[in-house]
Amino acid sequence: MPHESGQLYVVSAPSGAGKTSLVSALLKDMDHIGVSVSHTTRTMRPGEEDGVNYHFVDEPAFQAMIDRGEFFEHAWVFDRHYGTSRPAVAARLAEGEDVILEIDWQGARQIREQRPATRSIFILPPSFNALRTRLSGRGQDDDATIARRMKDAVSEMSHFNEYDYVVINDDFEVALAELKSIIQGERCRSERVQLRHSALLEDLLSHMPPVE
Amino acid sequence: MPHESGQLYVVSAPSGAGKTSLVSALLKDMDHIGVSVSHTTRTMRPGEEDGVNYHFVDEPAFQAMIDRGEFFEHAWVFDRHYGTSRPAVAARLAEGEDVILEIDWQGARQIREQRPATRSIFILPPSFNALRTRLSGRGQDDDATIARRMKDAVSEMSHFNEYDYVVINDDFEVALAELKSIIQGERCRSERVQLRHSALLEDLLSHMPPVE
Repeated sequence: MPHESGQLYVVSAPSGAGKTSLVSALLKDMDHIGVSVSHTTRTMRPGEEDGVNYHFVDEPAFQAMIDRGEFFEHAWVFDRHYGTSRPAVAARLAEGEDVILEIDWQGARQIREQRPATRSIFILPPSFNALRTRLSGRGQDDDATIARRMKDAVSEMSHFNEYDYVVINDDFEVALAELKSIIQGERCRSERVQLRHSALLEDLLSHMPPVE
Repeated sequence: MPHESGQLYVVSAPSGAGKTSLVSALLKDMDHIGVSVSHTTRTMRPGEEDGVNYHFVDEPAFQAMIDRGEFFEHAWVFDRHYGTSRPAVAARLAEGEDVILEIDWQGARQIREQRPATRSIFILPPSFNALRTRLSGRGQDDDATIARRMKDAVSEMSHFNEYDYVVINDDFEVALAELKSIIQGERCRSERVQLRHSALLEDLLSHMPPVE
Protein backbone atom coordinates (compact mmCIF):
# COMPACT_ATOMS: atom_id res chain seq x y z
CA MET A 1 0.00 0.00 0.00
CA PRO A 2 1.49 3.37 -1.02
CA HIS A 3 2.00 5.96 1.69
CA GLU A 4 -0.76 8.53 1.46
CA SER A 5 0.78 11.82 0.46
CA GLY A 6 -1.99 14.00 -0.94
CA GLN A 7 -3.53 16.77 1.15
CA LEU A 8 -7.24 16.87 1.89
CA TYR A 9 -8.87 20.32 1.74
CA VAL A 10 -12.28 21.49 2.78
CA VAL A 11 -13.47 24.63 0.99
CA SER A 12 -16.62 26.34 2.25
CA ALA A 13 -18.36 29.60 1.45
CA PRO A 14 -21.78 31.17 1.55
CA SER A 15 -23.71 30.93 -1.70
CA GLY A 16 -22.74 33.99 -3.76
CA ALA A 17 -19.11 34.23 -2.59
CA GLY A 18 -17.77 32.79 -5.86
CA LYS A 19 -16.44 29.49 -4.51
CA THR A 20 -17.30 27.41 -7.56
CA SER A 21 -15.64 29.81 -10.03
CA LEU A 22 -12.54 30.12 -7.87
CA VAL A 23 -12.14 26.38 -7.44
CA SER A 24 -12.67 25.79 -11.18
CA ALA A 25 -9.98 28.34 -12.04
CA LEU A 26 -7.66 26.80 -9.44
CA LEU A 27 -8.03 23.34 -10.99
CA LYS A 28 -7.24 24.73 -14.46
CA ASP A 29 -4.03 26.32 -13.19
CA MET A 30 -2.66 23.62 -10.90
CA ASP A 31 -1.78 19.95 -11.33
CA HIS A 32 -2.29 17.06 -8.93
CA ILE A 33 -5.42 18.50 -7.38
CA GLY A 34 -9.10 17.78 -7.96
CA VAL A 35 -12.51 18.07 -6.36
CA SER A 36 -14.39 15.18 -4.91
CA VAL A 37 -17.76 14.63 -6.59
CA SER A 38 -20.40 14.44 -3.86
CA HIS A 39 -23.54 12.37 -3.74
CA THR A 40 -26.84 14.20 -3.35
CA THR A 41 -30.56 13.52 -3.26
CA ARG A 42 -31.46 16.89 -4.74
CA THR A 43 -32.75 17.05 -8.32
CA MET A 44 -30.44 17.80 -11.21
CA ARG A 45 -30.51 21.43 -12.41
CA PRO A 46 -30.30 22.53 -16.05
CA GLY A 47 -26.71 22.17 -17.30
CA GLU A 48 -25.69 19.75 -14.58
CA GLU A 49 -24.38 16.28 -15.33
CA ASP A 50 -24.58 13.11 -13.23
CA GLY A 51 -21.11 12.06 -12.06
CA VAL A 52 -19.64 15.49 -12.84
CA ASN A 53 -21.46 18.03 -10.68
CA TYR A 54 -22.84 15.38 -8.31
CA HIS A 55 -23.71 11.75 -8.20
CA PHE A 56 -27.48 12.11 -8.17
CA VAL A 57 -29.16 9.35 -6.13
CA ASP A 58 -32.59 8.92 -4.54
CA GLU A 59 -33.27 8.98 -0.81
CA PRO A 60 -33.34 5.17 -0.25
CA ALA A 61 -30.04 4.74 -2.11
CA PHE A 62 -28.44 7.52 -0.05
CA GLN A 63 -29.77 6.00 3.17
CA ALA A 64 -28.32 2.62 2.21
CA MET A 65 -24.88 4.22 1.72
CA ILE A 66 -25.16 5.81 5.17
CA ASP A 67 -26.07 2.42 6.65
CA ARG A 68 -23.06 0.79 4.98
CA GLY A 69 -20.79 3.51 6.43
CA GLU A 70 -19.64 4.61 2.98
CA PHE A 71 -19.75 8.33 3.66
CA PHE A 72 -16.81 10.36 4.79
CA GLU A 73 -19.29 13.02 5.83
CA HIS A 74 -22.91 13.71 5.02
CA ALA A 75 -25.30 16.53 5.74
CA TRP A 76 -28.90 17.52 5.44
CA VAL A 77 -29.08 20.92 3.71
CA PHE A 78 -32.09 22.61 2.07
CA ASP A 79 -34.09 19.42 2.81
CA ARG A 80 -31.70 17.29 0.79
CA HIS A 81 -28.87 14.92 1.58
CA TYR A 82 -25.29 15.64 0.52
CA GLY A 83 -22.39 13.29 1.19
CA THR A 84 -18.78 12.45 0.31
CA SER A 85 -17.79 8.90 -0.57
CA ARG A 86 -14.88 7.81 1.60
CA PRO A 87 -13.16 5.21 -0.67
CA ALA A 88 -12.95 7.56 -3.66
CA VAL A 89 -11.23 10.28 -1.62
CA ALA A 90 -8.81 7.89 0.07
CA ALA A 91 -7.72 6.39 -3.25
CA ARG A 92 -6.83 9.77 -4.72
CA LEU A 93 -4.94 10.89 -1.62
CA ALA A 94 -2.99 7.63 -1.74
CA GLU A 95 -1.89 8.49 -5.29
CA GLY A 96 -0.47 11.77 -4.00
CA GLU A 97 -3.30 13.90 -5.39
CA ASP A 98 -4.67 16.78 -3.34
CA VAL A 99 -8.45 16.52 -2.97
CA ILE A 100 -10.86 19.39 -2.39
CA LEU A 101 -14.21 18.84 -0.71
CA GLU A 102 -16.65 21.66 -1.41
CA ILE A 103 -18.87 21.25 1.62
CA ASP A 104 -20.53 23.41 4.25
CA TRP A 105 -19.45 24.07 7.84
CA GLN A 106 -21.29 21.02 9.14
CA GLY A 107 -19.44 18.72 6.75
CA ALA A 108 -16.18 20.51 7.54
CA ARG A 109 -16.66 19.73 11.23
CA GLN A 110 -17.25 16.06 10.51
CA ILE A 111 -14.13 15.87 8.35
CA ARG A 112 -11.96 17.69 10.91
CA GLU A 113 -13.04 15.28 13.64
CA GLN A 114 -12.06 12.29 11.52
CA ARG A 115 -8.90 13.77 10.00
CA PRO A 116 -7.28 16.56 12.01
CA ALA A 117 -4.65 16.98 9.23
CA THR A 118 -7.33 18.34 6.89
CA ARG A 119 -6.78 21.97 5.88
CA SER A 120 -9.85 24.12 5.61
CA ILE A 121 -10.40 27.26 3.57
CA PHE A 122 -13.31 29.67 3.87
CA ILE A 123 -14.17 32.08 1.06
CA LEU A 124 -15.84 35.36 2.06
CA PRO A 125 -17.52 38.03 -0.07
CA PRO A 126 -15.94 41.52 0.06
CA SER A 127 -18.92 43.04 1.90
CA PHE A 128 -22.44 42.31 3.04
CA ASN A 129 -23.88 44.52 0.31
CA ALA A 130 -21.85 42.76 -2.38
CA LEU A 131 -23.24 39.45 -1.17
CA ARG A 132 -26.80 40.80 -1.24
CA THR A 133 -26.30 42.08 -4.79
CA ARG A 134 -24.87 38.76 -5.93
CA LEU A 135 -27.66 36.74 -4.37
CA SER A 136 -30.42 39.06 -5.64
CA GLY A 137 -28.97 39.47 -9.10
CA ARG A 138 -29.77 36.07 -10.52
CA GLY A 139 -33.21 37.31 -11.52
CA GLN A 140 -34.81 33.89 -11.51
CA ASP A 141 -35.92 33.63 -7.88
CA ASP A 142 -38.70 35.22 -5.83
CA ASP A 143 -38.14 37.38 -2.75
CA ALA A 144 -38.78 34.56 -0.28
CA THR A 145 -36.09 32.43 -1.97
CA ILE A 146 -33.60 35.31 -1.89
CA ALA A 147 -34.39 36.02 1.76
CA ARG A 148 -33.88 32.40 2.66
CA ARG A 149 -30.62 32.31 0.70
CA MET A 150 -29.37 35.41 2.56
CA LYS A 151 -30.26 33.84 5.88
CA ASP A 152 -28.41 30.66 4.93
CA ALA A 153 -25.39 32.67 3.70
CA VAL A 154 -25.20 34.59 6.96
CA SER A 155 -25.53 31.38 8.95
CA GLU A 156 -22.73 29.73 6.91
CA MET A 157 -20.46 32.80 7.31
CA SER A 158 -20.84 32.73 11.08
CA HIS A 159 -18.49 29.72 11.04
CA PHE A 160 -15.64 31.25 9.02
CA ASN A 161 -13.32 31.41 12.00
CA GLU A 162 -13.37 27.62 12.42
CA TYR A 163 -11.27 27.44 9.24
CA ASP A 164 -7.47 27.41 8.83
CA TYR A 165 -7.49 29.91 5.96
CA VAL A 166 -9.76 32.72 4.82
CA VAL A 167 -9.80 34.15 1.30
CA ILE A 168 -11.76 37.32 0.58
CA ASN A 169 -13.12 37.26 -2.95
CA ASP A 170 -13.03 40.97 -3.80
CA ASP A 171 -10.73 40.92 -6.86
CA PHE A 172 -11.11 37.48 -8.48
CA GLU A 173 -7.48 37.25 -9.64
CA VAL A 174 -6.13 38.22 -6.21
CA ALA A 175 -8.38 35.67 -4.53
CA LEU A 176 -7.30 33.01 -7.02
CA ALA A 177 -3.62 33.80 -6.42
CA GLU A 178 -4.21 33.49 -2.67
CA LEU A 179 -5.92 30.13 -3.07
CA LYS A 180 -3.01 28.88 -5.17
CA SER A 181 -0.50 30.13 -2.61
CA ILE A 182 -2.30 28.26 0.15
CA ILE A 183 -2.14 24.98 -1.81
CA GLN A 184 1.46 25.55 -2.95
CA GLY A 185 2.59 26.60 0.51
CA GLU A 186 1.04 23.50 2.05
CA ARG A 187 2.98 21.40 -0.46
CA CYS A 188 6.17 22.85 1.02
CA ARG A 189 5.36 21.61 4.50
CA SER A 190 8.22 19.58 5.89
CA GLU A 191 6.29 16.32 6.21
CA ARG A 192 5.00 16.54 2.64
CA VAL A 193 8.41 17.36 1.15
CA GLN A 194 9.79 14.36 3.01
CA LEU A 195 7.23 12.09 1.32
CA ARG A 196 7.68 13.61 -2.13
CA HIS A 197 11.48 13.90 -2.15
CA SER A 198 12.49 10.86 -0.16
CA ALA A 199 15.30 9.96 -2.60
CA LEU A 200 16.96 13.38 -2.31
CA LEU A 201 16.64 13.35 1.45
CA GLU A 202 18.18 9.88 1.59
CA ASP A 203 21.09 11.21 -0.48
CA LEU A 204 21.59 14.15 1.89
CA LEU A 205 20.93 12.13 5.05
CA SER A 206 23.48 9.47 4.10
CA HIS A 207 26.16 12.07 4.80
CA MET A 208 24.60 13.33 8.00
CA PRO A 209 26.03 12.89 11.47
CA PRO A 210 23.79 11.79 14.35
CA VAL A 211 21.44 14.58 15.41
CA GLU A 212 22.65 16.56 18.42
CA MET B 1 -0.41 49.70 21.68
CA PRO B 2 -1.22 48.26 18.25
CA HIS B 3 -2.04 44.56 18.04
CA GLU B 4 0.94 42.73 16.63
CA SER B 5 -0.05 41.32 13.27
CA GLY B 6 3.18 40.58 11.37
CA GLN B 7 4.46 37.04 11.09
CA LEU B 8 7.92 36.07 12.31
CA TYR B 9 9.87 33.67 10.08
CA VAL B 10 13.06 31.78 10.67
CA VAL B 11 14.92 30.82 7.49
CA SER B 12 17.85 28.42 7.78
CA ALA B 13 20.03 26.62 5.28
CA PRO B 14 23.48 25.15 4.97
CA SER B 15 26.05 27.46 3.45
CA GLY B 16 25.85 26.97 -0.32
CA ALA B 17 22.12 26.31 -0.53
CA GLY B 18 21.39 29.78 -1.92
CA LYS B 19 19.49 31.19 1.04
CA THR B 20 20.81 34.74 0.75
CA SER B 21 19.97 35.04 -2.97
CA LEU B 22 16.51 33.57 -2.47
CA VAL B 23 15.66 35.86 0.43
CA SER B 24 16.95 38.92 -1.48
CA ALA B 25 14.77 38.05 -4.47
CA LEU B 26 11.81 37.46 -2.17
CA LEU B 27 12.18 40.91 -0.60
CA LYS B 28 12.31 42.54 -4.05
CA ASP B 29 9.05 40.84 -5.08
CA MET B 30 6.97 41.17 -1.93
CA ASP B 31 5.84 44.06 0.24
CA HIS B 32 5.53 44.25 4.00
CA ILE B 33 8.37 41.85 4.67
CA GLY B 34 11.98 42.40 5.63
CA VAL B 35 14.96 40.72 7.22
CA SER B 36 16.18 41.44 10.67
CA VAL B 37 19.76 42.72 10.73
CA SER B 38 21.70 40.62 13.22
CA HIS B 39 24.54 41.62 15.50
CA THR B 40 27.83 39.76 15.14
CA THR B 41 31.37 39.79 16.48
CA ARG B 42 32.87 38.45 13.26
CA THR B 43 34.92 40.81 11.09
CA MET B 44 33.38 42.64 8.17
CA ARG B 45 34.04 41.02 4.76
CA PRO B 46 34.75 42.94 1.56
CA GLY B 47 31.53 44.43 0.21
CA GLU B 48 29.69 44.23 3.52
CA GLU B 49 28.25 47.25 5.27
CA ASP B 50 27.70 47.87 8.97
CA GLY B 51 23.98 48.07 9.74
CA VAL B 52 23.04 46.46 6.42
CA ASN B 53 24.56 42.96 6.41
CA TYR B 54 25.14 42.94 10.14
CA HIS B 55 25.61 45.27 13.05
CA PHE B 56 29.32 44.64 13.64
CA VAL B 57 30.25 44.85 17.32
CA ASP B 58 33.18 43.66 19.44
CA GLU B 59 33.02 40.87 21.97
CA PRO B 60 32.62 43.04 25.12
CA ALA B 61 29.79 45.00 23.50
CA PHE B 62 28.03 41.77 22.48
CA GLN B 63 28.48 40.35 25.96
CA ALA B 64 26.96 43.49 27.47
CA MET B 65 23.89 43.10 25.25
CA ILE B 66 23.53 39.48 26.41
CA ASP B 67 23.77 40.65 30.03
CA ARG B 68 21.07 43.26 29.45
CA GLY B 69 18.80 40.58 27.93
CA GLU B 70 18.53 42.44 24.64
CA PHE B 71 18.85 39.39 22.42
CA PHE B 72 15.93 37.47 21.05
CA GLU B 73 18.36 34.66 20.34
CA HIS B 74 22.10 34.43 20.09
CA ALA B 75 24.55 31.74 19.06
CA TRP B 76 28.22 30.94 18.91
CA VAL B 77 29.10 29.84 15.36
CA PHE B 78 32.55 29.58 13.73
CA ASP B 79 34.02 31.03 16.95
CA ARG B 80 31.93 34.18 16.66
CA HIS B 81 28.78 35.50 18.27
CA TYR B 82 25.61 36.12 16.27
CA GLY B 83 22.42 37.53 17.78
CA THR B 84 19.03 39.09 17.04
CA SER B 85 17.92 42.26 18.80
CA ARG B 86 14.51 41.72 20.38
CA PRO B 87 13.11 45.29 20.38
CA ALA B 88 13.80 45.87 16.68
CA VAL B 89 11.94 42.72 15.66
CA ALA B 90 9.00 43.37 17.98
CA ALA B 91 8.53 46.90 16.64
CA ARG B 92 8.32 45.74 13.03
CA LEU B 93 5.90 42.93 13.83
CA ALA B 94 3.72 45.43 15.68
CA GLU B 95 3.52 47.50 12.50
CA GLY B 96 2.15 44.48 10.65
CA GLU B 97 5.42 43.74 8.83
CA ASP B 98 6.57 40.17 8.39
CA VAL B 99 10.12 39.71 9.66
CA ILE B 100 12.61 37.09 8.49
CA LEU B 101 15.43 35.93 10.73
CA GLU B 102 18.24 34.27 8.78
CA ILE B 103 19.69 32.13 11.52
CA ASP B 104 20.92 28.59 12.05
CA TRP B 105 19.15 25.64 13.68
CA GLN B 106 20.34 26.62 17.16
CA GLY B 107 18.85 30.09 16.84
CA ALA B 108 15.69 28.62 15.35
CA ARG B 109 15.26 26.44 18.42
CA GLN B 110 15.64 29.41 20.74
CA ILE B 111 13.06 31.39 18.77
CA ARG B 112 10.57 28.51 18.65
CA GLU B 113 10.78 28.09 22.42
CA GLN B 114 10.02 31.76 22.98
CA ARG B 115 7.43 32.15 20.22
CA PRO B 116 5.68 28.95 19.15
CA ALA B 117 3.78 30.93 16.46
CA THR B 118 7.04 31.45 14.54
CA ARG B 119 7.08 29.74 11.13
CA SER B 120 10.33 28.17 10.10
CA ILE B 121 11.62 27.44 6.60
CA PHE B 122 14.61 25.30 5.71
CA ILE B 123 16.30 25.60 2.31
CA LEU B 124 18.00 22.48 0.96
CA PRO B 125 20.38 22.03 -1.98
CA PRO B 126 19.14 19.70 -4.78
CA SER B 127 21.79 17.04 -4.00
CA PHE B 128 24.87 16.39 -1.95
CA ASN B 129 27.08 16.68 -5.03
CA ALA B 130 25.53 20.03 -5.96
CA LEU B 131 26.30 21.29 -2.48
CA ARG B 132 29.91 20.09 -2.71
CA THR B 133 30.32 21.79 -6.08
CA ARG B 134 28.87 25.04 -4.75
CA LEU B 135 31.05 25.01 -1.64
CA SER B 136 34.21 24.10 -3.57
CA GLY B 137 33.59 26.46 -6.44
CA ARG B 138 34.37 29.73 -4.72
CA GLY B 139 38.05 29.23 -5.55
CA GLN B 140 39.28 31.42 -2.72
CA ASP B 141 39.53 28.87 0.10
CA ASP B 142 41.90 26.00 0.90
CA ASP B 143 40.88 22.35 1.23
CA ALA B 144 40.67 22.44 5.02
CA THR B 145 38.28 25.38 4.88
CA ILE B 146 36.11 23.62 2.30
CA ALA B 147 36.12 20.40 4.34
CA ARG B 148 35.09 22.30 7.46
CA ARG B 149 32.37 24.10 5.53
CA MET B 150 31.03 20.76 4.23
CA LYS B 151 30.99 19.35 7.73
CA ASP B 152 29.12 22.40 9.01
CA ALA B 153 26.66 22.20 6.09
CA VAL B 154 25.94 18.54 6.79
CA SER B 155 25.48 19.27 10.48
CA GLU B 156 23.07 22.13 9.72
CA MET B 157 21.08 19.98 7.27
CA SER B 158 20.60 17.26 9.87
CA HIS B 159 18.05 19.59 11.50
CA PHE B 160 15.90 20.28 8.44
CA ASN B 161 12.98 18.22 9.75
CA GLU B 162 12.57 20.51 12.78
CA TYR B 163 11.22 23.14 10.37
CA ASP B 164 7.63 23.81 9.28
CA TYR B 165 8.51 24.19 5.62
CA VAL B 166 11.24 22.88 3.34
CA VAL B 167 12.20 24.45 0.01
CA ILE B 168 14.57 22.59 -2.33
CA ASN B 169 16.66 25.06 -4.30
CA ASP B 170 17.12 23.16 -7.57
CA ASP B 171 15.58 25.63 -10.02
CA PHE B 172 15.97 29.12 -8.51
CA GLU B 173 12.68 30.47 -9.90
CA VAL B 174 10.71 27.45 -8.67
CA ALA B 175 12.28 27.75 -5.22
CA LEU B 176 11.51 31.49 -5.16
CA ALA B 177 7.88 30.86 -6.16
CA GLU B 178 7.59 28.30 -3.36
CA LEU B 179 9.01 30.73 -0.81
CA LYS B 180 6.54 33.39 -1.92
CA SER B 181 3.65 30.92 -1.70
CA ILE B 182 4.61 30.03 1.84
CA ILE B 183 4.57 33.70 2.90
CA GLN B 184 1.39 34.49 0.95
CA GLY B 185 -0.36 31.36 2.20
CA GLU B 186 0.50 32.24 5.80
CA ARG B 187 -1.03 35.68 5.25
CA CYS B 188 -4.34 33.93 4.44
CA ARG B 189 -4.43 32.17 7.80
CA SER B 190 -7.71 32.81 9.53
CA GLU B 191 -6.23 34.63 12.55
CA ARG B 192 -4.16 36.95 10.33
CA VAL B 193 -7.06 37.79 8.00
CA GLN B 194 -9.10 38.64 11.09
CA LEU B 195 -6.46 41.16 12.19
CA ARG B 196 -6.00 42.67 8.73
CA HIS B 197 -9.65 42.84 7.66
CA SER B 198 -11.37 43.57 10.94
CA ALA B 199 -13.64 46.22 9.36
CA LEU B 200 -14.99 43.84 6.72
CA LEU B 201 -15.50 41.12 9.27
CA GLU B 202 -17.37 43.51 11.53
CA ASP B 203 -19.61 44.39 8.57
CA LEU B 204 -20.32 40.72 7.89
CA LEU B 205 -20.59 39.76 11.55
CA SER B 206 -23.10 42.52 12.29
CA HIS B 207 -25.61 40.48 10.29
CA MET B 208 -24.70 37.17 11.81
CA PRO B 209 -26.89 35.11 14.12
CA PRO B 210 -25.42 33.56 17.27
CA VAL B 211 -23.08 30.70 16.44
CA GLU B 212 -24.72 27.27 16.71
